[in-house]
Amino acid sequence: MGGVTDSDHSSAAALHPAERLHLARKAVRDAGVDALLVSPGADLRYLTGYHALPLERLTCLVVPAEADPFLVVPALERPAALASPAGGLGLDITGFAETDDAYALIARRLPPGVRRFAVDNHMWAEKLLAFQAALPGAQASLAGDVLLELRMRKSPAEVEALRRAGAAIDRVHRRVGEWLRPGRTEREVAKDIADAIVAAGHATVDFVIVGSGPNSASPHHEVSDRVVRAGDPVVVDIGGTTPEGYCSDSTRTYAVGEPPAAFRELYAVLLRAQTAQTDAVRPGITAEELDAVGRDIITAAGYGEHFIHRTGHGIGMESHEEPYIVAGSRRALAPGMAFSIEPGIYLPDTYGARIEDIAVCTETGGERLNLTGRDLVVLPG
Amino acid sequence: MGGVTDSDHSSAAALHPAERLHLARKAVRDAGVDALLVSPGADLRYLTGYHALPLERLTCLVVPAEADPFLVVPALERPAALASPAGGLGLDITGFAETDDAYALIARRLPPGVRRFAVDNHMWAEKLLAFQAALPGAQASLAGDVLLELRMRKSPAEVEALRRAGAAIDRVHRRVGEWLRPGRTEREVAKDIADAIVAAGHATVDFVIVGSGPNSASPHHEVSDRVVRAGDPVVVDIGGTTPEGYCSDSTRTYAVGEPPAAFRELYAVLLRAQTAQTDAVRPGITAEELDAVGRDIITAAGYGEHFIHRTGHGIGMESHEEPYIVAGSRRALAPGMAFSIEPGIYLPDTYGARIEDIAVCTETGGERLNLTGRDLVVLPG
Repeated sequence: MGGVTDSDHSSAAALHPAERLHLARKAVRDAGVDALLVSPGADLRYLTGYHALPLERLTCLVVPAEADPFLVVPALERPAALASPAGGLGLDITGFAETDDAYALIARRLPPGVRRFAVDNHMWAEKLLAFQAALPGAQASLAGDVLLELRMRKSPAEVEALRRAGAAIDRVHRRVGEWLRPGRTEREVAKDIADAIVAAGHATVDFVIVGSGPNSASPHHEVSDRVVRAGDPVVVDIGGTTPEGYCSDSTRTYAVGEPPAAFRELYAVLLRAQTAQTDAVRPGITAEELDAVGRDIITAAGYGEHFIHRTGHGIGMESHEEPYIVAGSRRALAPGMAFSIEPGIYLPDTYGARIEDIAVCTETGGERLNLTGRDLVVLPG
Repeated sequence: MGGVTDSDHSSAAALHPAERLHLARKAVRDAGVDALLVSPGADLRYLTGYHALPLERLTCLVVPAEADPFLVVPALERPAALASPAGGLGLDITGFAETDDAYALIARRLPPGVRRFAVDNHMWAEKLLAFQAALPGAQASLAGDVLLELRMRKSPAEVEALRRAGAAIDRVHRRVGEWLRPGRTEREVAKDIADAIVAAGHATVDFVIVGSGPNSASPHHEVSDRVVRAGDPVVVDIGGTTPEGYCSDSTRTYAVGEPPAAFRELYAVLLRAQTAQTDAVRPGITAEELDAVGRDIITAAGYGEHFIHRTGHGIGMESHEEPYIVAGSRRALAPGMAFSIEPGIYLPDTYGARIEDIAVCTETGGERLNLTGRDLVVLPG
C-alpha cells in the first residue's frame, strides 16, 4: 500500500468486526485448530478493524479455540491499537518491550498442549518459523482454510462497500479519455490515472496498467515509456482500496483512433465471452464452469490459445482472494461471493484486449459492480 | 508500495545483480544450506534486479548450493521476467501454467536429498508451508541468515544510491514550511508532502507521519484530521523508495510558532543525543553501544523513561532491515552498513520530538546521508 497512511478506522468499524471475531472463534473450533495467529494484513483488519502495517516487530491477534482472543503488539504500537476499532472489542491488548520475545510470550499465554495452529496466509516466513520454534511439535496450517467460508461470503454491508469501490473506479474509467492521447507515454497517462484513483475516493492506488499497442498483448505489463500512437489498442486495468478497506478492480480496452479491423473482430468475440460470463453468474455454478462459459466462446472463434490466464479472482479486503474462477476449481458459487470476470485475448507482439468487471453472486443470479459501457471505446486519434 | 508501478528496471541493473547472485551462491554453500528459495521482494530484487510484486501465484528464484540457479514464474509473468535484468543473467526462466503445481515442479528440479532450505524472510506463510510439504523432512531456515552479511554491507554503488535517496527526502524536508501551517489538518499537510516525495524523485511514497501537538508524543502516529495549532510541535517522519529501489527515511521536528520553553529544553537534549550518536558511528562500535551513546545523554537529563524505542534500523532496498541499533545487540558496525539514528523523547499526551538521519559506517567513521539542519525549525505560527 502506498500514498498517505491513515489512522482513521471508523468506517471499517462500521462493518462490525466484533461479530466477525465471534464467528472466527467458532470457525477455529470447527476446524479442529487450537489457536489462530493473525499478523497485520487483511485477516487482521477483517477480524478487528485494526489496519496495521506488517513490520519486523510482531503484531499478532491470537484466537484460541478454548479461551478469549487477545492482541499482542509492540509497546509503542499499543496506543494506535487501542485507538483502532480493536480497542472497542473488549480484547486484551498486551504491549511488549523492545527486548522481549513476543513469540515466547504468546506461547506461554496459550492453553497448554497446542497441537495445531493456523496462521494468516500472508504471515512472513520469519514469523511463522518463530512460531514453529516456540510451539515445538505443533502442526501449522493456514488461516485461509479456517476463515475461507467467512471471508468469501460477503455480508450485505461488505457488498455495499464493494459497490462503493466499484463506483469509484468507474468514475476513473469514465475520464480516461481526458488523459489517453497519441503522443503521451504510458507512464504520463498512468500518473494522471493514479491521481484520479485517489481523487475518486480511494485511500490507496493498488495498480495502474496502461498497455498500449504491442504492450496490450502482455496481460501483466504495467507501464513503460512507450509513446501512445494513433490506432493503438490500449488496455487500462486499474484498482485501489477505499478508506474502509475494500478493493476495486476494473479493466477497459480503449482504441486511440480507429484500430485495425481485425482488432474489432477480436474485441467483438471477447465482449460476447465476457457478457456471457457475467450473465451466467448464479448460485451453484462452479468456478470451472464459469471459466468455461467464456473460454468456449473464445475457443470456438479460434482464439483459444490466446486466452492465457484464468477468468478471474475473488475480491474484498484483498484485491486477489478466494474464490478464483479457474479451470479445475469445482467450487460452487454462493450468494455473497465477489470476484472479477476478466477474459482476455492476446496476440503476441501485435495487440490484445481484456474486459473486467467485478461481479457478486446473489440469491438469484449475479450483480455487476462495474457499470461503465463494455463496447470498445474509440478515443480521438 | 503504491502509486504507479514501474516496468523499468534499468537503474537497478546498474547495481550488478549478476555479481550478487554469484556471491549468494557462495553464501548458500558456506551456510550449509542445500537451496535458497526467494519469492518476490527485496531479496529477489537485490539478487536479480527483478522487481516483481508478491502474488498468490508463485514466483521463485532457486539458488541450489550445487547447481545453477533458476527462476520459476507464472507463464503470463515470463515476458516481464525476461524483460527485467533477470533476463540478462543467463538464468533459466521457466514459466508454469495456471493449473501446474509450481512447488512440486521446483522440488523435482532440485538435486535429490535436500535436507535444509532457506526462504526469504518475507515469503508468505502459504508458500513456506507449500515448500515444507513439497520437501518433506527438510528443515526450513531464513534467507536473512544466509544473505545478511551480503545485504548489510552496502557496495559503493549502493551507498551512492542511498545518498541519492537521502538527498531526495532532504529536498522534501526543506519545503515542509510551504505546507505546515496553523489551521490545516495533519492529513492535508501529509497529502502535500506525499506529492512532494514523488516530485522529489521517489517512485513510491512509503510513509508520511505528521504528528502535531499531543500526537507528536506517539512515535507511530501516522496522520489524523487534527488541525495544527499555533505553538504546536510537529514531528514529520517521511520516506519513499527511489526508482532504483533504495529507501529514504528522515525525521525532523518542527514548531509552528514559538513552542513552550520546556519543549525547547527537551529538544536541546534530544539534539545533543542524536548529534553524539551520529558522531560516534565508526567501525567496531556495537549496535548496543551506539544506542547507549544517545540513551545515556537522554537519561542523564531525566528523560530516560520517555525514550521508548530503539535508536534505529538498517536501511537499503527495505526501509527496515539489519542492522538494528538496539539495546542487547552486540553486532559490531562495519564499513558499508547503513542505518537510521532516530532517538526520540515523548511526554504522553503533551508533546514529543524525534530527529532522524540515515548514517553509513565508513572505513574511518560515519557519513550522514541526510543533511538538512537539525536545529528546531520554528515556522510562522
